[in-house]
Amino acid sequence: MTIGGRTRVYGILADPIGQVRTPQAFNALCEARDFDAVLVPFHVAAEDLAEAVAGLRRLRSLGGLVVTVPHKQAMRALCDRLEPMGRLVGAVNAVRREADGSLVGENFDGRGFVAGLRAEGHEPRGRRALLLGAGGAGAAIAFALAEAGVAELAIANRSAAKGAALAAAVGEAFPGVAVRSATAEGSGFDLLVNATSLGLRPEDPLPLPAESIPAGALVAEVVMQPAVTPLLQAADERGATIHGGRHMLQGQLEAIAAFLGVPAG
Amino acid sequence: MTIGGRTRVYGILADPIGQVRTPQAFNALCEARDFDAVLVPFHVAAEDLAEAVAGLRRLRSLGGLVVTVPHKQAMRALCDRLEPMGRLVGAVNAVRREADGSLVGENFDGRGFVAGLRAEGHEPRGRRALLLGAGGAGAAIAFALAEAGVAELAIANRSAAKGAALAAAVGEAFPGVAVRSATAEGSGFDLLVNATSLGLRPEDPLPLPAESIPAGALVAEVVMQPAVTPLLQAADERGATIHGGRHMLQGQLEAIAAFLGVPAG
Repeated sequence: MTIGGRTRVYGILADPIGQVRTPQAFNALCEARDFDAVLVPFHVAAEDLAEAVAGLRRLRSLGGLVVTVPHKQAMRALCDRLEPMGRLVGAVNAVRREADGSLVGENFDGRGFVAGLRAEGHEPRGRRALLLGAGGAGAAIAFALAEAGVAELAIANRSAAKGAALAAAVGEAFPGVAVRSATAEGSGFDLLVNATSLGLRPEDPLPLPAESIPAGALVAEVVMQPAVTPLLQAADERGATIHGGRHMLQGQLEAIAAFLGVPAG
Repeated sequence: MTIGGRTRVYGILADPIGQVRTPQAFNALCEARDFDAVLVPFHVAAEDLAEAVAGLRRLRSLGGLVVTVPHKQAMRALCDRLEPMGRLVGAVNAVRREADGSLVGENFDGRGFVAGLRAEGHEPRGRRALLLGAGGAGAAIAFALAEAGVAELAIANRSAAKGAALAAAVGEAFPGVAVRSATAEGSGFDLLVNATSLGLRPEDPLPLPAESIPAGALVAEVVMQPAVTPLLQAADERGATIHGGRHMLQGQLEAIAAFLGVPAG
């Protein structure tokens, strides 16, 4: 695809930025759909975010922004409007620039996870889910699992108070779902989700005891490296179905592209 | 070339922007040189320029800006430092972002014109030049012709006072060159340059009387469309050598790319 004067420009805001892979994936998607647009890296430090965004919203050729670490929370306050998930989660990872320069933020981390589950044939609706971790990724996934209609959602977090607060917020937003805080114990659940960073480093402990993983459960990761974490390996050995962190990315990409105005494939 | 997290980003500031062709040319040049960079269109209205630039300078992945209509004069005031031509001409068409976020502006319009002459084998040094027009393009070319060492530079402008003011400024900056204001009359010159917009529309008059074009002169245009303007056609009929507006662009592109940190080919 050739970039010209009419090309729609998108930027990814991150610090550090060298490792991001979204430009390659997003641009390949635009090219496959014959959509004249390009996503480029905007390396912005946390302390510069507000001023950078104030300037970027003046670019009439800017279609929007993909937002990642460390800007997801701060970006929320710089949006003129928040879509439901962005408001619930308190963080955004995609921002659309409207023709009048206003910015609309939304969070696709959790929905990307759910889309990744579904793309692999795992419907979360009706499941009894245990979510490990109530940080940024955990919160996004908690709301998205509730939105997707899990029957039950238990949230285990190292800081129990934080886990309980998230459980209360999710329960309030989705009164039809039984949401509670819990300990990191898999018995009785058929969907276990690791949304902590445990598994990223070889020396990390498992996020829950291996022997508590039910044989018939689906065990899903947000950790992408290694592709098979010690948790997934233990789950596989126990006869559970495993679902790697990479599926979340593709699910997100599609949802973010649609939100940012890229035509469907 | 694939855009990734380490790709250097450049932007072209313009309004309107749809017609710009610099992204195609600049990106082809970067690709040919295996330089991981991309130039994208930044559509900014005049009233938004200051805020847009304040934000853009916070982008650490931004290598710089190409600046065109209507921002060349206003951009000058937003630079932290001006290179000599930018200062003399009072307008910039390229801005480099240094690692500390400071912006250095320079003007390559005139040098691009001179580089275009030389690329076609026309050395301006020692020539007796008549420049038609003392607007933005005229001023840039006047300083660049003086810098290139023309023996004599006469400037004809519809507003004689503006032409005289430019002549005085160029003479002060380049005391070795005989600079003066003049009428639009070609006799006695061996380089005639049209830096007015006359020739852009079919109904435009010639910028000087056809019968005043010396047979041995070189007649050069800044007007790019049509490729052969009525002035060039008249010059050709009178036995003069002609030099179209497009050469200026390629000359500029090389100079701007070097200024913005693109390695030499």
